[in-house]
Amino acid sequence: MIYFDHAASSFPKPKAVADAMYEAVTQYAANPGRGGHVLAERARLTVEEARAKLAALFGAPQPKHVWFYQNATMALNQALFGFQFEEGDHVVTTAFEHNSVLRPLERLKREKGINVTYVKPNEEDEITAQALMEACTAKTKMLALSHASNVTGAFIQIDQLASFAKENEITVLLDASQTAGTLPIHMEKDGIDLLAFAGHKSLLGPQGTGVLISREDYGLLPLVVGGTGSYSELPVQPDVWPDRYEAGTLNTPGIAGLAAGVDEIVKKGIATIYEHEQELLTLFIEETEQIAGLRHYGPADLAKRVAVASFYLEGIGSHELAIILDEHYQIAVRAGLHCAPQTHRVLETSNSGLVRVSFGPYNTKEEVKTLVRALKEIQQAFV
Amino acid sequence: MIYFDHAASSFPKPKAVADAMYEAVTQYAANPGRGGHVLAERARLTVEEARAKLAALFGAPQPKHVWFYQNATMALNQALFGFQFEEGDHVVTTAFEHNSVLRPLERLKREKGINVTYVKPNEEDEITAQALMEACTAKTKMLALSHASNVTGAFIQIDQLASFAKENEITVLLDASQTAGTLPIHMEKDGIDLLAFAGHKSLLGPQGTGVLISREDYGLLPLVVGGTGSYSELPVQPDVWPDRYEAGTLNTPGIAGLAAGVDEIVKKGIATIYEHEQELLTLFIEETEQIAGLRHYGPADLAKRVAVASFYLEGIGSHELAIILDEHYQIAVRAGLHCAPQTHRVLETSNSGLVRVSFGPYNTKEEVKTLVRALKEIQQAFV
Repeated sequence: MIYFDHAASSFPKPKAVADAMYEAVTQYAANPGRGGHVLAERARLTVEEARAKLAALFGAPQPKHVWFYQNATMALNQALFGFQFEEGDHVVTTAFEHNSVLRPLERLKREKGINVTYVKPNEEDEITAQALMEACTAKTKMLALSHASNVTGAFIQIDQLASFAKENEITVLLDASQTAGTLPIHMEKDGIDLLAFAGHKSLLGPQGTGVLISREDYGLLPLVVGGTGSYSELPVQPDVWPDRYEAGTLNTPGIAGLAAGVDEIVKKGIATIYEHEQELLTLFIEETEQIAGLRHYGPADLAKRVAVASFYLEGIGSHELAIILDEHYQIAVRAGLHCAPQTHRVLETSNSGLVRVSFGPYNTKEEVKTLVRALKEIQQAFV
Repeated sequence: MIYFDHAASSFPKPKAVADAMYEAVTQYAANPGRGGHVLAERARLTVEEARAKLAALFGAPQPKHVWFYQNATMALNQALFGFQFEEGDHVVTTAFEHNSVLRPLERLKREKGINVTYVKPNEEDEITAQALMEACTAKTKMLALSHASNVTGAFIQIDQLASFAKENEITVLLDASQTAGTLPIHMEKDGIDLLAFAGHKSLLGPQGTGVLISREDYGLLPLVVGGTGSYSELPVQPDVWPDRYEAGTLNTPGIAGLAAGVDEIVKKGIATIYEHEQELLTLFIEETEQIAGLRHYGPADLAKRVAVASFYLEGIGSHELAIILDEHYQIAVRAGLHCAPQTHRVLETSNSGLVRVSFGPYNTKEEVKTLVRALKEIQQAFV
């Protein structure tokens, strides 16, 4: 089996991820922070170590600014629904958003009367910092941005927005689900206020993990309230971080697995991972460009993309092609709209959908070549 | 190490739970329902099997009525914040609620103008169905109830409310975090509309799992919106269940582990588990009643309780006692307010807190006797 669906979930995971989870479940599956005994303490330490690792990796001020959720969607919902928008407030976002940003924003439009501008890509399928700044008005309170499109891999030069956003008191919310673990991200240097990402994609952690990091205090209201193991006598969430934003029992095994994934990323080095994936992307694009009827989307300048490529092969529906690749060639890719309807509207691929391939740190050039050969065979069989 | 903190998280887990998670992470850590390939399909099947098992165990109409969350707190928040309360609506709840019910209700009071009645226990520390019914008014829209107190283990005879609630069109929300896996629960027969519970307590699953089961359609609004892998073209959550209430990537390894926990429960039999834990509870209460200065809380009739016991030993603070048990005797218990401040207010133990012991299916009489001996020693040392 060749796995090219890393943009949905990375696979395989480092063995250390599964081992860390196994250890958590078999050795100390107690409730962190909710009892003083030795097992609860070990669970607490595991969670706090993971917090510290993530804070260090992403340039967050302190571990307590790192909050754990079940997925990036919930982290984004906490950021967007927690933000105290008022009627008439303006949000600038992109046409490349995943439904995890799009659907909360559309709800905020309906329920809170905010206005949203969806910035479209230029002719090279790229969304520029310039275009984003131009879309801002005096009422703009937030830039809510996918760091990279999950369809084309095109990423935003986020650091170019930093001083503009600061001067204009615009909160920058970055959805780094497609980039955390592949692109260097530093909240302080890049001017990111709120950083949300999935643990189970390029960070190589397990599903069931998502993270929101809040650089400063933006007055977010907790999305979920309940037990925190602290200040139990209060009828409201305590103010102390991270407790305020983490009601209920945490996913200790998942968080232990995520920490092991982060260790692997740090060991390999993000730059090395990026270069490796970039080589695979380059190889794939170069080798498939000559295939008749195959059309690529996204910036031609691959330096502007992470290792995600979506394409259309004339004469074959995208789902059909994905099924052939899966059943006939044991190659896992992903077809359809990729939970990003606007992206496909902008690319004019809503009807057909696209086939997406996305590369990970353990993929090899040989695997890419196998995919290229498969696509050539399929193309010939269908002509 | 003797583990008596099952009310916080059960431990140990059956080996099958850790194995199922390991298999999920190492064999098919793809994104369920978000790709057509074989790994994504295997992940999807795992999740759907878990849904079916839980639906069968709790008498839910269909698997799609079972929704997965990161913990019971989030399941309860989805139920409470999703319910379309109007100003002046009335909710009846109990003085035994965990903060996961208490804090959402207090927020609904402030933000939506609902009214909440906290029904107090009778002299036997028991909350009766009769008292709950008497607290209802013409404006009561919901009974939001902890099935059992996480401090005293006292449980409500929930089936006695079924016909009353139905006649008066009151939605019954049951927090079964302390009972799912120990007491028989059947949504249909017991007249439970919304059932929330943790996967990591008596169901023996891992942390990171919580469940809400909705028997019918109560028009709940989704708490979290985002990608569902279905109807991606819509700017709103799709209506189809469970997608509507499960935005973002699910915790496949956790859900696989929970399913293995449920298998173990079904194999052992809930009645057998209850009887075993009841024996341990009875032994513990009987053997400790004679200890001078030790005071038990909760109904004296143990048939009205699950296997949770909280007590106070005169002359020793509850945290101090827990630390001695942990460090000196390697016995894990839990001290403090147990995220249930009102319970302690009613029991008049807010200042001291209590020491809670809670028994699980793998605990033995020998372990209980060891605890009893330890308490006797401690009591003598402190007198």
